[in-house]
Amino acid sequence: MSTPPGRVTIKDVAAAAGVSKGAVSLAFNNKPGVSGATRERIFAAARQLGWAPNSAARSLSRQSVDTVGLALCRPARLLGLEPFYMEFISGIESVLAEHDCSLLLRLVGSLEEEIQLQERWWRERQVDGSILVDFHQGDPRISPLRALGLPAVGVGHPDLTGGFPSVWTDDATAVAEAVRYLAALGHRRIARVGGPAGLGHSAIRAEAFERTMEELGLDGGRHVETGFSGEEGARATRMLLLASDRPTAIVYDNDIMAFAGFGVAAEVGVAVPDDLSLLAWDDSQLCRLTHPTLSAMSHDVHGFGAEVARVLFDLLAGQDVPSRPVATPSLVPRGSTAPPRP
Amino acid sequence: MSTPPGRVTIKDVAAAAGVSKGAVSLAFNNKPGVSGATRERIFAAARQLGWAPNSAARSLSRQSVDTVGLALCRPARLLGLEPFYMEFISGIESVLAEHDCSLLLRLVGSLEEEIQLQERWWRERQVDGSILVDFHQGDPRISPLRALGLPAVGVGHPDLTGGFPSVWTDDATAVAEAVRYLAALGHRRIARVGGPAGLGHSAIRAEAFERTMEELGLDGGRHVETGFSGEEGARATRMLLLASDRPTAIVYDNDIMAFAGFGVAAEVGVAVPDDLSLLAWDDSQLCRLTHPTLSAMSHDVHGFGAEVARVLFDLLAGQDVPSRPVATPSLVPRGSTAPPRP
Repeated sequence: MSTPPGRVTIKDVAAAAGVSKGAVSLAFNNKPGVSGATRERIFAAARQLGWAPNSAARSLSRQSVDTVGLALCRPARLLGLEPFYMEFISGIESVLAEHDCSLLLRLVGSLEEEIQLQERWWRERQVDGSILVDFHQGDPRISPLRALGLPAVGVGHPDLTGGFPSVWTDDATAVAEAVRYLAALGHRRIARVGGPAGLGHSAIRAEAFERTMEELGLDGGRHVETGFSGEEGARATRMLLLASDRPTAIVYDNDIMAFAGFGVAAEVGVAVPDDLSLLAWDDSQLCRLTHPTLSAMSHDVHGFGAEVARVLFDLLAGQDVPSRPVATPSLVPRGSTAPPRP
Repeated sequence: MSTPPGRVTIKDVAAAAGVSKGAVSLAFNNKPGVSGATRERIFAAARQLGWAPNSAARSLSRQSVDTVGLALCRPARLLGLEPFYMEFISGIESVLAEHDCSLLLRLVGSLEEEIQLQERWWRERQVDGSILVDFHQGDPRISPLRALGLPAVGVGHPDLTGGFPSVWTDDATAVAEAVRYLAALGHRRIARVGGPAGLGHSAIRAEAFERTMEELGLDGGRHVETGFSGEEGARATRMLLLASDRPTAIVYDNDIMAFAGFGVAAEVGVAVPDDLSLLAWDDSQLCRLTHPTLSAMSHDVHGFGAEVARVLFDLLAGQDVPSRPVATPSLVPRGSTAPPRP
């Protein structure tokens, strides 16, 4: 990706902003000599015209990629609680280390804040490129960051990443496999404990769950949305198990929530897997350390992060990088799933 | 990218500092031949003029702190498995976000690699300061990084951090409390599943364990060293439980291992807490999601990370920052500890 070369030039930006080419250069190199107001006018003109200092020239003069940016839009407290991001980051880092490159990591409070941050990182040359995650439907980051010419890889379905080359998992297929497996065991009352509806991949999974349940002639209305934390997974499971027609199987959107569900089942005296089957997602080591062990839609999160980093390096090397899926999460049946007690 | 030609050069820096170009080069390459005072004058001049050697990734003319470095010396795969570092990093990030500052994160394969990395980060002004973790006895990073003048905070006991201001937890006191609590419940055969002996804080805990056991007239020889992963915690627990004189209580050095021990107890048919008491460390949400819940030496890891970041900002603001302990981990008794069955 990136602004097509040879169209808009620094001269056009200078003309649009009513300044000299030199001033544009000073602004983009964050040098003194341009007032704050002029600098903003120059950036606005560049954004509008879709111009960014040529990234090829940039990397040539710099010789190598040495920093990649990643902003995460979630509360700091939550970040520490979910295994996914640490495994994902460890995968990214494993590839960055091979390239002697570091990760610039930042927690932001909103997508608007991320836009400003990415703009500053890019203009001030703090990053060579970025990894964008947690896409929403109609994500507000796409348009300004594409206008900026930021080289970036989107983590999410290509329908969500708005033209940024994307690396993604086929969540719809995996959800269908999970539901069909539980139905094949004989379950009819299957529930799903999912992530926030605003996230694109949660919406994809929710839709696939409902569609598959419908195809099987089952009621797909048993959804609970959460923010991915163990506490919320526990609360959702308690609510489902205390209902009059409690489910005999639950699919979770990550493994910490499935693990929490396991604790709740013991707490309310529901036997796993005899009275309740639990199916986790992502499959970190947690799933293999419980007794019985947790069945999961297994997913190499570390490898996912590594692949995202590889695609970004390809992009920065000027290669054409089509969006590509990583392996679809696949079912690993363990001790927490079984046919329902007759 | 690089400093645009024709602007500030090494010559200007040399003139401003009243030294030769060669001296500037020596200072920035951390070579002998320039006194500490001269080096500081050169750095000050360079910073004032906005000059950096071969990289203008960041403008030196900016006065605010905007990047803090953290290198972790552990295999990428392991990093994703341990809740501690993600919670610690989330605490750091919470304070960095208040200062509009980002974390430059890197996995390294050895302490030697970290030394080179920190030197480069500092010379190329990629970081304003760093956080140093996982101190070893006689840590090889101390001397070169102090010579460099890198502003850094050490995470570890002041005996280990060699003059870097440190933020630490009083592990010896916490271990003594843990052992005395289990002994007061009536346990005599108490084992410990610890971290790698090479790490300074593991050594401190091991010594405190042995000393406290000895004071109580108990055999303190039941130690197992691990690399902190759940799998290793499971293996250590299995080994301890299959021995002829198996312990009735086990203290773990983190919570993922205690959690794994919990699974192993169920697997080999040892009842928790009737036949075996388990005491975790750090106390992430894992401990509250099992059934029974896990007793733990509770420790606000997020707050620990936040405090480390605050101390670094104080240091960078030129304040005098004495080493300081954060709150000592304290016992939170839950369902996994009880008197041994008579």
